[in-house]
Amino acid sequence: MGNCCRSFWCGEKNPNVRVSLPAVCFVWQIAMIILFGLFVRYNEESDAHWSDYKHQKNITSDIENDFYYRYPSFQDVHVMIFVGFGFLMTFLKRYSFSGVGFNFLIAAFGLQWALLMQGWFHSLDPVNGTIKIGVENIINADFCVAGCLIAYGALLGKVSPVQLMVLTLFGVTLFAVEEYIILDVLHARDAGGSMVIHTFGAYYGLTISWILYRPKLSQSKLLSGSVYHSDVFAMIGTLFLWMFWPSFNSAIADHGDGQHRAAINTYLALASSVLTTFAISSLSAKKGKLDMVHIQNATLAGGVAMGTAAEFMITPYGSLIVGFCCGILSTFGYLVITPFMEKYLKIQDTCGIHNLHAMPGVLGGVIGAITAATASEGVYGHEGLINTFDFEGDFAKRSPSMQGGFQAAGLCVALVFGIVGGAVVGLILRLPLWGDPSDDNCFDDEVYWEVPEDEESIPPILEYNNHMVGKHPDMTSDSNFTMDQS
Amino acid sequence: MGNCCRSFWCGEKNPNVRVSLPAVCFVWQIAMIILFGLFVRYNEESDAHWSDYKHQKNITSDIENDFYYRYPSFQDVHVMIFVGFGFLMTFLKRYSFSGVGFNFLIAAFGLQWALLMQGWFHSLDPVNGTIKIGVENIINADFCVAGCLIAYGALLGKVSPVQLMVLTLFGVTLFAVEEYIILDVLHARDAGGSMVIHTFGAYYGLTISWILYRPKLSQSKLLSGSVYHSDVFAMIGTLFLWMFWPSFNSAIADHGDGQHRAAINTYLALASSVLTTFAISSLSAKKGKLDMVHIQNATLAGGVAMGTAAEFMITPYGSLIVGFCCGILSTFGYLVITPFMEKYLKIQDTCGIHNLHAMPGVLGGVIGAITAATASEGVYGHEGLINTFDFEGDFAKRSPSMQGGFQAAGLCVALVFGIVGGAVVGLILRLPLWGDPSDDNCFDDEVYWEVPEDEESIPPILEYNNHMVGKHPDMTSDSNFTMDQS
Amino acid sequence: MGNCCRSFWCGEKNPNVRVSLPAVCFVWQIAMIILFGLFVRYNEESDAHWSDYKHQKNITSDIENDFYYRYPSFQDVHVMIFVGFGFLMTFLKRYSFSGVGFNFLIAAFGLQWALLMQGWFHSLDPVNGTIKIGVENIINADFCVAGCLIAYGALLGKVSPVQLMVLTLFGVTLFAVEEYIILDVLHARDAGGSMVIHTFGAYYGLTISWILYRPKLSQSKLLSGSVYHSDVFAMIGTLFLWMFWPSFNSAIADHGDGQHRAAINTYLALASSVLTTFAISSLSAKKGKLDMVHIQNATLAGGVAMGTAAEFMITPYGSLIVGFCCGILSTFGYLVITPFMEKYLKIQDTCGIHNLHAMPGVLGGVIGAITAATASEGVYGHEGLINTFDFEGDFAKRSPSMQGGFQAAGLCVALVFGIVGGAVVGLILRLPLWGDPSDDNCFDDEVYWEVPEDEESIPPILEYNNHMVGKHPDMTSDSNFTMDQS
Repeated sequence: MGNCCRSFWCGEKNPNVRVSLPAVCFVWQIAMIILFGLFVRYNEESDAHWSDYKHQKNITSDIENDFYYRYPSFQDVHVMIFVGFGFLMTFLKRYSFSGVGFNFLIAAFGLQWALLMQGWFHSLDPVNGTIKIGVENIINADFCVAGCLIAYGALLGKVSPVQLMVLTLFGVTLFAVEEYIILDVLHARDAGGSMVIHTFGAYYGLTISWILYRPKLSQSKLLSGSVYHSDVFAMIGTLFLWMFWPSFNSAIADHGDGQHRAAINTYLALASSVLTTFAISSLSAKKGKLDMVHIQNATLAGGVAMGTAAEFMITPYGSLIVGFCCGILSTFGYLVITPFMEKYLKIQDTCGIHNLHAMPGVLGGVIGAITAATASEGVYGHEGLINTFDFEGDFAKRSPSMQGGFQAAGLCVALVFGIVGGAVVGLILRLPLWGDPSDDNCFDDEVYWEVPEDEESIPPILEYNNHMVGKHPDMTSDSNFTMDQS
Repeated sequence: MGNCCRSFWCGEKNPNVRVSLPAVCFVWQIAMIILFGLFVRYNEESDAHWSDYKHQKNITSDIENDFYYRYPSFQDVHVMIFVGFGFLMTFLKRYSFSGVGFNFLIAAFGLQWALLMQGWFHSLDPVNGTIKIGVENIINADFCVAGCLIAYGALLGKVSPVQLMVLTLFGVTLFAVEEYIILDVLHARDAGGSMVIHTFGAYYGLTISWILYRPKLSQSKLLSGSVYHSDVFAMIGTLFLWMFWPSFNSAIADHGDGQHRAAINTYLALASSVLTTFAISSLSAKKGKLDMVHIQNATLAGGVAMGTAAEFMITPYGSLIVGFCCGILSTFGYLVITPFMEKYLKIQDTCGIHNLHAMPGVLGGVIGAITAATASEGVYGHEGLINTFDFEGDFAKRSPSMQGGFQAAGLCVALVFGIVGGAVVGLILRLPLWGDPSDDNCFDDEVYWEVPEDEESIPPILEYNNHMVGKHPDMTSDSNFTMDQS
Repeated sequence: MGNCCRSFWCGEKNPNVRVSLPAVCFVWQIAMIILFGLFVRYNEESDAHWSDYKHQKNITSDIENDFYYRYPSFQDVHVMIFVGFGFLMTFLKRYSFSGVGFNFLIAAFGLQWALLMQGWFHSLDPVNGTIKIGVENIINADFCVAGCLIAYGALLGKVSPVQLMVLTLFGVTLFAVEEYIILDVLHARDAGGSMVIHTFGAYYGLTISWILYRPKLSQSKLLSGSVYHSDVFAMIGTLFLWMFWPSFNSAIADHGDGQHRAAINTYLALASSVLTTFAISSLSAKKGKLDMVHIQNATLAGGVAMGTAAEFMITPYGSLIVGFCCGILSTFGYLVITPFMEKYLKIQDTCGIHNLHAMPGVLGGVIGAITAATASEGVYGHEGLINTFDFEGDFAKRSPSMQGGFQAAGLCVALVFGIVGGAVVGLILRLPLWGDPSDDNCFDDEVYWEVPEDEESIPPILEYNNHMVGKHPDMTSDSNFTMDQS
């Protein structure tokens, strides 16, 4: 950044979002309503004409509705997005409200915008130009949002909710374009999104964090760690992500063996990650003490890295090997690479998304490319190979090795979109309009939330003074009041 | 209430439930066993004769068993009832045990009683007078319980577990009658229960709270707020309710497009609610600071308001509009209406159920009536219209506009049952028999629970004194002991 | 244990696991990879040849893939294993990291080893000697792990992670053999594992705890209780176990009515347990105050006791009776039997697994035997009886009363394996190699984890000193630092 505009960019920070946040929420929500009114309709499986469609397509049973194939997985993915990502970000001692709350806000906005953006690219009805939505669309919208939530992980504690809304608006837009190029133009496969979601999301967030570098962040040092119970809350996020990752990677895989295999492969890779994470965490510490940061994050790396290959015939032991390597790589990242990046590359990565999403995501893309390139009719069967890689229509002639090349190309597209998109959006987020906190106010819920009185000062006082307080009749049952006693 | 009986009603409160709570639990549970023994049997899909039934009905596959259509949704609803409602009520600083624990107790009792009551009205086998249960019955039992849990929200912190059991006994009874009138007699549709569950439950609770008005509740003022971590716990409840609401509204909708559409509509309305809740919350506060109470509650209003119309062709943008309005309405309720109701109407509503359930529930009933009245064969298709509104048998001749009228009548029934039922039950709960706490003892787990020592006094002491404590050999591993040091 | 070797066994404890834990994790994970490479393959429903298999078996729809019958239940079971068991063990004031963390570690290891062990006994392809896995195998692996997690409950706070890994290795091995004898050789039915999982797991853990008896455990007395928020965390575990137990007992039951009935029976038994648990808990305490320990545990006893009989025609009221008795029995256990066992039998049972798993498990086995012995064609139908008890092939001639006898024999096998296996493994765990904590260091996360600074010392200091801390530029964003102020 040139010095000339430093003074403009770095004026006194004012984190008051009383105008900007409501304005953004209202305007964008109204825009969503208008665009949905113009474009979005039910698809044939969620429309009341389903019974006609059934007759027409000779479908004998309601259970053939895609809803029954995918809805259980959808709900698991939904839990990952809101509880998984949300609670994973509660680990900071005084930033749990923002961690889980802003996650909630931007996911709720992002999924609407994603339905539109992805709809325009993937579900447009050629006849009347409307977007037809069903259960697969809402899974994809949740996926799309995941990319932005990953980016939030790098910025946790350092940005305002308005900045996050902007990040999500552009993030979803970039995601939809990138996804279109990778899945439709290049015809790469990426059911669990190692490339499309994790690689893109992580580099998008890291680049923004680099642009928004805060040299004096150490002024917020006292709040940048965890406390005992905030770490337990974060484990709720970790476990729901970990448990439901098989659903994440299988949610939009092919019906039948595709979903089945994706779930098993992911299950195995995740299990393997856990053991190597514990191993490296213990090995690296004085007296072998485990570090909660590693357990909360690196145990998930196996799921990220299986995002592309989960639906392929990677074999059960192949999945274990992927998890094995990722657990090591990711924990090592927390130990060595995150401090290095902060000190030398000026990238402040609060949740360590580089270790949990960027590296395993890239690795997952590479593994997917290799697995695709080595696929054969012997392993997949003739029909199985066609189904798994969708070698139909324009792509009927594509060979597995060509597919491997296109997978690799897809990974590059994800990287480029993440880095270039992040750079542009980072610059936009530097505009002194968005109400971000000053360097000594980071990681603090007080900036954006009404925070209740602290726990420790309450109980002993109460027992003795309970009979003395009848004089204050002005209590309202829902408000958090201030106590007279310090 | 007349003055004459004041002295009788308002004697010294004794919150000891050592006789009454076990008595109620034992006697009622034994009554349940006897009634189940007399009445309840498996239906043809859960009975071992299923294989005969399959042959008879020419069903080719086990997957056609209703279990596979509804069980995933059932489990989501189950989570909403026990974790969703339970944790939403942990927000008070010292009432988390009661919030989640009494919720657990009354839901476990209520669902048994609901299976009987709803069974007598809806699933009675005409041949032998038994109730045949399957997965749809246990979903409906959970729904029925939800009505009582909503009512608990208004009374949180001010009633004894025995009172809650009584509230549940009568609540479930009233619910079953009201539901029978609305769904069977009036033949209104209400898959997600805007009227049947939310409107009824909320007015039932609010009326009871009005009858049980505590003029000196401010004596418990010090415990009526939240602390940091209790607010994070409450977010667990909020998010599980929010995420699984699409399952709630679709759980008993029609197979196929009905369930599919209900899930999508609810998903959209909820997303929209989140944005307007954040907007109003920020707009209303000094410096734009968000209030956790709003985020925990008003974000859910969209799901409540979609309870009736979710399975209709309300269109995706229609759902967004519903959520948009409800988020505003509900947050506004917390800001203005709850304090007003407390001050002028003498209704103390601890969780603000008027804002989360009553208003959005009534709105949902109205929306349902309008959507039904404007339905047409053009939009639904001939068969779709019949399926969606069940225009079969006695109701084959009903037109959409007539249906709209009956929907509106249903809403009135729910309101009347809630208010009149609540008044009667409220008077019963005023009897000085139930062990409720005195006004200066509200919002305090100490009254009904063995509460462990407080957190803050432990760790520093421990580190220094760890070697000195070997003299106390009387420890039992499961008991919470008292420390010698204050 | 003889006195001669006391001095060898009881040298100075060194809980440093920096070498042993990583070594165990790495070596065993590599062994898993090698064994999976040699043995484990996809089964016909998760293999890409599924489309060929469909043609061959004349399966018309992908929805017939076992994935769609069992995957929703699998995810529920998965949540029980990781969040349910994990959070149930967070109730101790300073052992939440270990409770949820070590649960995570050993479950992730155990499920891999279980896939192999169970595969060798149950899913071996006779043609090429490989194990073919699908969704039912991963459910069974989770079940197998549950046995070891139950055993962990008895030892919570007193063992090292390395000991837990050893316990899991042997536990899974014993489990697979015992399961093979009970389910295949004796042909007993045990869909929810009252015998196979709960009885075995509980006696395995209790016997180990007896062998590892710590006479001076009272030195850790100050940490052996709960604090307010740790009890709320434990309720997360309780509720997820409670809610998803119907899925646990129905996950591997027969398609169709089997799964349907198992879910309903379990649902009812659990509801009934809750009421009697609250009743006994209140009845037993001064002033009728409820004890969180009972609510967290005994409410689950109904699910344990329905493990065997859930898929039988035990009738809805039969299920309620089972839950009724188990709630009483289990709460009574916490009040009387656990203290008795600790004082006189020298069995220290941290979580009270004797009350939650051992007694209800044995009771469940007995109930299963009785229910099986009294089965008849009148109740089940001809085909239903054959399906439910699998009276096919070698067992086509078996009568229900004989089946009852074999069920009882199965219970004995589970008991013998638990006690004998526990004795052997207990002796192995006494070897002074495993890094277990000394008696005054039990129940303390500090031993194996980097624990962050305590909550209560933070917030007030922060507000006043926030502007003074800019001098410390050495902060790393992910580490938990020590504050300069005490």
